Amino acid sequence: MSPKITTELLKQLRQVMKNPRYVQEPVQAYIVPSGDAHQSEYIAPCDCRRAFISGFDGSAGTAIVTEQHAAMWTDGRYFLQAAHQMDSNWTLMKMGLKDTPTQEDWLVSVLPEGSKVGVDPFIIPADQWKRMSKVLRSAGHDLVPVKGNLIDTIWTDCPQRPCKPLITLDLSYTGVSWRDKIVALRSKMAERKVMWFVVTALDEVAWLFNLRGSDVEYNPVFFAYAIIGVNTIRLFIDGDRMMDPAVREHLQLDSTLEPEFKIQVMPYGSILSELQAVGAGLSPKEKVWLSDKASYALTEAIPKAYRYLTPYTPICIAKAVKNAAETEGMRRAHIKDAVALCELFNWLEKEVPKGTVTEIVAADKAEEFRSQQKDFVELSFATISSTGPNGAIIHYKPVRETNRTLSVNEIYLLDSGAQYKDGTTDVTRTMHFGTPSAYEKECFTYVLKGHIAVSAAIFPNGTKGHLLDSFARSALWDCGLDYLHGTGHGVGSFLNVHEGPCGISYKTFADEPLEAGMIVSDEPGYYEDGSFGIRIENVVLVIPAETKYNFKNRGSLTFEPLTLVPIQTKMIDVNLLTEKERNWVNEYHQKCREVVGAELERQGRHEALRWLLRETEPLARVQ
Amino acid sequence: MSPKITTELLKQLRQVMKNPRYVQEPVQAYIVPSGDAHQSEYIAPCDCRRAFISGFDGSAGTAIVTEQHAAMWTDGRYFLQAAHQMDSNWTLMKMGLKDTPTQEDWLVSVLPEGSKVGVDPFIIPADQWKRMSKVLRSAGHDLVPVKGNLIDTIWTDCPQRPCKPLITLDLSYTGVSWRDKIVALRSKMAERKVMWFVVTALDEVAWLFNLRGSDVEYNPVFFAYAIIGVNTIRLFIDGDRMMDPAVREHLQLDSTLEPEFKIQVMPYGSILSELQAVGAGLSPKEKVWLSDKASYALTEAIPKAYRYLTPYTPICIAKAVKNAAETEGMRRAHIKDAVALCELFNWLEKEVPKGTVTEIVAADKAEEFRSQQKDFVELSFATISSTGPNGAIIHYKPVRETNRTLSVNEIYLLDSGAQYKDGTTDVTRTMHFGTPSAYEKECFTYVLKGHIAVSAAIFPNGTKGHLLDSFARSALWDCGLDYLHGTGHGVGSFLNVHEGPCGISYKTFADEPLEAGMIVSDEPGYYEDGSFGIRIENVVLVIPAETKYNFKNRGSLTFEPLTLVPIQTKMIDVNLLTEKERNWVNEYHQKCREVVGAELERQGRHEALRWLLRETEPLARVQ
Repeated sequence: MSPKITTELLKQLRQVMKNPRYVQEPVQAYIVPSGDAHQSEYIAPCDCRRAFISGFDGSAGTAIVTEQHAAMWTDGRYFLQAAHQMDSNWTLMKMGLKDTPTQEDWLVSVLPEGSKVGVDPFIIPADQWKRMSKVLRSAGHDLVPVKGNLIDTIWTDCPQRPCKPLITLDLSYTGVSWRDKIVALRSKMAERKVMWFVVTALDEVAWLFNLRGSDVEYNPVFFAYAIIGVNTIRLFIDGDRMMDPAVREHLQLDSTLEPEFKIQVMPYGSILSELQAVGAGLSPKEKVWLSDKASYALTEAIPKAYRYLTPYTPICIAKAVKNAAETEGMRRAHIKDAVALCELFNWLEKEVPKGTVTEIVAADKAEEFRSQQKDFVELSFATISSTGPNGAIIHYKPVRETNRTLSVNEIYLLDSGAQYKDGTTDVTRTMHFGTPSAYEKECFTYVLKGHIAVSAAIFPNGTKGHLLDSFARSALWDCGLDYLHGTGHGVGSFLNVHEGPCGISYKTFADEPLEAGMIVSDEPGYYEDGSFGIRIENVVLVIPAETKYNFKNRGSLTFEPLTLVPIQTKMIDVNLLTEKERNWVNEYHQKCREVVGAELERQGRHEALRWLLRETEPLARVQ
Repeated sequence: MSPKITTELLKQLRQVMKNPRYVQEPVQAYIVPSGDAHQSEYIAPCDCRRAFISGFDGSAGTAIVTEQHAAMWTDGRYFLQAAHQMDSNWTLMKMGLKDTPTQEDWLVSVLPEGSKVGVDPFIIPADQWKRMSKVLRSAGHDLVPVKGNLIDTIWTDCPQRPCKPLITLDLSYTGVSWRDKIVALRSKMAERKVMWFVVTALDEVAWLFNLRGSDVEYNPVFFAYAIIGVNTIRLFIDGDRMMDPAVREHLQLDSTLEPEFKIQVMPYGSILSELQAVGAGLSPKEKVWLSDKASYALTEAIPKAYRYLTPYTPICIAKAVKNAAETEGMRRAHIKDAVALCELFNWLEKEVPKGTVTEIVAADKAEEFRSQQKDFVELSFATISSTGPNGAIIHYKPVRETNRTLSVNEIYLLDSGAQYKDGTTDVTRTMHFGTPSAYEKECFTYVLKGHIAVSAAIFPNGTKGHLLDSFARSALWDCGLDYLHGTGHGVGSFLNVHEGPCGISYKTFADEPLEAGMIVSDEPGYYEDGSFGIRIENVVLVIPAETKYNFKNRGSLTFEPLTLVPIQTKMIDVNLLTEKERNWVNEYHQKCREVVGAELERQGRHEALRWLLRETEPLARVQ
């Protein structure tokens, strides 16, 4: 892929940064964060401002443009991709490496005294505003809100904000009605003595109302906000979506309801003025609950003394713990997903040697097989289909310029997933269609050992996911290998493939303790720049564990893999596995056989079933 | 031990909380933190205000007294001890358990509206003030500084503040002169563009000037502050200690020096007014560097815009990385310490069966053997000598009322250490002088596996200690066991036995990455309330590791045990060890034999040598 040429765009941006039509006073730096007004990770095309200005379109990254410099901060997943996509106007700031300055420190180091740093107040989260503004102020600069987005002023062909129809989910999918979710939310509000709760994250709005949308690719969400009072519900949403009879019925918009469950529908754009009105009408001691990641603009709408900010909202925490209906849905979705992947890998095994399968062809084929499954909606993220050196680009997405043909000489890494109406999947398998080298097998086996160490870990109730991260690395560390990304993320139930508040990462973030019913990914990897990438990822469910002494009745937890796709035994150096690890692989494969085998049988997919049976032969004990 | 009766004291405290002679306006709650004006962990008797008011004298705990309630927050090490030492006036708040409220949340739940919460501004760290004050303010209360300490007003027989002679350390102990340390500090100040650095922690003052004292038991420190300017050095210290010719010579007080190395000696009590004068004289952009744990009183002396606060000071970070002279000193100290413990355990083995050795006798004997070693100064903390159920009290200290006789039927846990002029030691061994039960051996072996997992861990440069904590727990977790304390702490070099900025803990604190030259403890345990306690603790040095692939030249680290005391093989269930673990034990014991054996030989301690040889017989391979 060739980098985007940004010389002219940067020139234009630098002009509007000084133009009194757009800024109250000139800004010496302008920050372009990754997110949208909902701090979403995946965003609609109209919100891809950072990609527009820089060319770098990975899912995480912040651009800062000053009169002299243009710099991009991103994490280890994207170092290679960002370097490829950006031209020489840009400096790549590799987050997580020791010598990389923070955005604030960098700004302080390059800005002339008394500078103004501008940012769109709807895009920057309040917690980040606070942190940056403090550091900048202490160095004599000012962070200032620039009301109209400056990128939008130079983005002449910016696409429209999407406004697609909604899907309603009944109890068989959600397990809990939206009314009961409102009741539970209000009881959390009462516990904290708050009068209002502002729902700003798109997946939280979708979850709360048991609705789904397709405004953002891969994430079944729709643009909306909500304000929940102790007696009122306001939903801010545009378009004629509320005219759909199924939606009106689902939300009981035309029924005679107790007033506290009556939903007032309001225009999406009126959230700020409505919230300001709420803020202006507060009596002393009346608090408004917001995520501390809500936008600076919305947070500022509530006077400081009335704000109740938390890193995770009660919806985020409730949403993470899946109920029985959701868990069963996730199981079903993962079985269907496994069927599709058995078909794919069986097909690849036959086709790859012919030299006609490119990364894009393989990705398309994976989507084709998935789309044959019941209740398939769309993919859950852009398929990472990468072979050879492309595998080392952690969040690679094949495009025409980089598209490589799969061969019997290179490792192939496929990280893919789908949205089904009953659940969300995310699975990575690393395969070799010829004969892997001893070094490739060695690295694969260390990654597998890490995967198993997390998946089989037993830990007491109340343990936070970050305490499990090193288990995934220990085998790699022993040999001087590591990977520059976290080990796992929360996974939504027919919702975002990445969700809080739990995860497994070396980064010290304020994760909530793992609880039975939470669903996370387990995905250690190893990447050899210029050669290959290895990752083994299952989605796993947190379940109670049985232990000999049970932590004095504190109870304990472990994981159950929901993903049931064979792990290629050809890539395993059995000599490097302990007996416990070998048993884990064999039991896992036995379960794949039983559960996915039955479904392949039911769907009459006999060739894929034979592939599954062959790929799940038990590993032999080493002498 | 019987609890301290505090009814009358609490009545008096509640009176002064309302008495205008002591408070500007009545306070409805008064906080009594653990520390002194230097936020020390170990404190002088005159600073033991929390112990005076509550009876609980563990090293960590915060008391809060309101008109109706008296509550004590402490951590898992002290739950049992605090419950024993406090009368029914007090509620124990078990920190780290899910349902325990924070101090702030508790205050909000019990206080009447618009309450004042008082605290001594010299005792409360600024970061804690900020956090508490914010929560209290948002709930309509006020945190207020109460200038005279209210405990002191009712503590009629409060002891005098100590003021003992100083010890000077030459280059053979410190490796770096105090002048070079000042130069290095000023270069860190220049990097951050600060003009002043305020040294508030006692061990940081001691380290910076290569001086030691004995004002606080176990910690070789002295009451002092320092303010380092770019051209000035002010040392705040009381008494005639500065009249000592050795000290005057060491600090070159009477020499003609470059002005920037001339030390101005000032009274200890003048720090606040001097710092206020510094604060008043600052030009714009002149910053003053303080620890964010410095007292609220000193932090407030500098106007907010001029403060540069960091969680760890440059002295704290420099002090943690031991140089060659310090490392060699620590090695020597640990060999001497091992000699003393070989003597002790040999003696115990003979004496315990007679039924005459109590916990106190054993602790005294340990001190006696240590004091026979060269350059012994004092113990590095109160010896934890505990047998049977007392072992489950994590930071137990034997006193007359609880003193138990060692026997061949109970596990004995000894956690002890010493200050030698060349280094600080801290070692725990758990022994059985009869026949341990299968369950005791099982638990001991899991703890040993955890100890080895940390000690033998290999990890990339830049890894923080908290990422290693779960390695210590994994074997225990697998069986449903755990321990409620961290796994390791930094250890000073002839300084405090607990020091920052590194450690190994499940608690997410902002630890600095481990670096070669840092020294920490590795001390997993298991405690069965009412029965026994097990802990295996070595002090370990962070050293570079050699790995097969060396993290692409990022480099890697591991640990070298400095402690060289046999781990009782009688307690090990060899069936539960992997081959790698068995080899670790055998290699460790081989090193004890070689290094400590040679020193026992040199000191003519032949009986202890025979004990060492017997205790370090290799573990046999299990069939």
